[in-house]
Amino acid sequence: MSHPVSPASELSAARFDILGIGNAIVDVVAPTGDDFLSRHDMRKGGMALISAEQAEALYRAMPPGQESSGGSAANTCAVAAALGARVAFLGKVAEDQLGAVFRHDITAAGVHFPTAPLQGQAPTARCLIAVTPDGQRTMNTYLGACVSFGGTDLDESLVADSAVTYLEGYLFDPPLAQEAFHRAAKVAHDAGRLVALSLSDAFCVDRHRAAFRDLVRDHIDILFANEAEICSLYEENEFEQAVRHAGADVALAALTRSEAGSIVLRGAERVEVAAAPVQVVDTTGAGDAYAAGFLAAYAAGRGLRACGQLGSQAAAAAIAQYGARPRADLSAMMAAIQE
Amino acid sequence: MSHPVSPASELSAARFDILGIGNAIVDVVAPTGDDFLSRHDMRKGGMALISAEQAEALYRAMPPGQESSGGSAANTCAVAAALGARVAFLGKVAEDQLGAVFRHDITAAGVHFPTAPLQGQAPTARCLIAVTPDGQRTMNTYLGACVSFGGTDLDESLVADSAVTYLEGYLFDPPLAQEAFHRAAKVAHDAGRLVALSLSDAFCVDRHRAAFRDLVRDHIDILFANEAEICSLYEENEFEQAVRHAGADVALAALTRSEAGSIVLRGAERVEVAAAPVQVVDTTGAGDAYAAGFLAAYAAGRGLRACGQLGSQAAAAAIAQYGARPRADLSAMMAAIQE
Repeated sequence: MSHPVSPASELSAARFDILGIGNAIVDVVAPTGDDFLSRHDMRKGGMALISAEQAEALYRAMPPGQESSGGSAANTCAVAAALGARVAFLGKVAEDQLGAVFRHDITAAGVHFPTAPLQGQAPTARCLIAVTPDGQRTMNTYLGACVSFGGTDLDESLVADSAVTYLEGYLFDPPLAQEAFHRAAKVAHDAGRLVALSLSDAFCVDRHRAAFRDLVRDHIDILFANEAEICSLYEENEFEQAVRHAGADVALAALTRSEAGSIVLRGAERVEVAAAPVQVVDTTGAGDAYAAGFLAAYAAGRGLRACGQLGSQAAAAAIAQYGARPRADLSAMMAAIQE
Repeated sequence: MSHPVSPASELSAARFDILGIGNAIVDVVAPTGDDFLSRHDMRKGGMALISAEQAEALYRAMPPGQESSGGSAANTCAVAAALGARVAFLGKVAEDQLGAVFRHDITAAGVHFPTAPLQGQAPTARCLIAVTPDGQRTMNTYLGACVSFGGTDLDESLVADSAVTYLEGYLFDPPLAQEAFHRAAKVAHDAGRLVALSLSDAFCVDRHRAAFRDLVRDHIDILFANEAEICSLYEENEFEQAVRHAGADVALAALTRSEAGSIVLRGAERVEVAAAPVQVVDTTGAGDAYAAGFLAAYAAGRGLRACGQLGSQAAAAAIAQYGARPRADLSAMMAAIQE
């Protein structure tokens, strides 16, 4: 908690409201039954890392799919831009067809994306997503070019010129990225900027718990997590116990609980926000969209309740359709928030 | 009308119910406003052919999209297989990532797809599809590897072993394919099989009217067309005039009129079938799905009304969602048709 959260007036002096750093991934989304998950040893709702060979075998077994740009922080960036924020993204694709798709989509969303593509090595990352009839998504990621994201890809001037640098927890998986993570946090804070983190996934937290705890306590100003993730981080069974830890560790925390809404904590302040009502089609990208709404409202100088509400509404737009990034026009969404 | 339509009992002796031959295309679907169409000189609801350079420029101007396997006859094959028919497809992709996506999807749909990929030349074809708020789709196709589909790709034993060889009108655009078309019709008829054709698009009919008229009159047993296409083929303004020509030229015709349903003609028989009620999301693939339902029911020995009804219901499943190939489980649809 060494870096108090700056007022919005200070944030607005930056060139970008949000700089996302994360894995640059193309999603392959297909509807499956629950039996598909058990047959392939998948934990429903989770994300597992798989090799190129495993990805090929799993893809062969999957039903016909749809491809669209994904990646947790990249989704957040695309949605935040659609909500009116000024956004940049750093992440590694290869120079191939799926890399071109990723670059097109994030650029067409209005996000500045300067990372050079990887040449002649691993292909663009893909995430094979099984969507079960309950709308839950279960993900298997082949990281491909993402594992090459490292020091030289971290555009430090961009970090220094962004009000909030937003890191996805999944970026702890590729080994080079952890260093970039810490470097980004240092550069941001030296420039008087904020650093946000999404814990991404309970199993990801499990893989990197000690590193996450150190990072959260020492370098993170704004923390996003859902119930399973925050409980995993602090090894607590009771959500309220985990909430207490988070409140002590970071200046600002937004903790989501699916249809039970979210809790926003800032020091002694605690704001409870309802989820926006929605017919669940596919929950892929719901957490990413929540973070987008929250940060876009935050960058616009809105209060904590408005931040949580825009988060809820952006998440609902993602949940109401197939695929992670809402196709609906979100440009009027922020102005419609009353608080 | 030299080839009378065989009874279903004879069709069932073949290895496949339907062999589709068409362009192997990956769709890039994005929501746009009507202004996008006028700004880029697009005729709403039509399909235009574009060069690699035009495709690149148009893609740059397009909003974020979603990729999924497409191609008119290929869509028909995927839907017919989902309805329970035994289906094969011939079409040319390149050996690249989008080609792998196309191959995965059609194979995962249960369609036999033996065509070898093109090596080291043009990439897999793509169709840039703008979906306007009225659910209409406007398409721009870069044919890529499809223009290399030719004689050696026509698996004649497969044609001879398929009850119906189904040709898409769009395949008249790549120059080599026209020969394959005529050859396929000859092989099919020599083996006592049927040949079906979809006119695909009024502008496509316009480009190839004389060739289409000869083909329809001399080599086609089952014709699929919508109102604009059949009127364009016979240069008639009145639908009923065009219907009369079609009835005289082919043994069996299924003529669709969007929400006004379809008309099925066989000799003196005329069956009018209502459209299935549906909330329009995206009409991409509606005609392809109609042909799939019709042919799947036909191969199963169902009557003309059942064929038209399954066509209507399959089309509704395609229209109710974003993208051409329905994600819903269609396996029980045919059994639910009462007629």
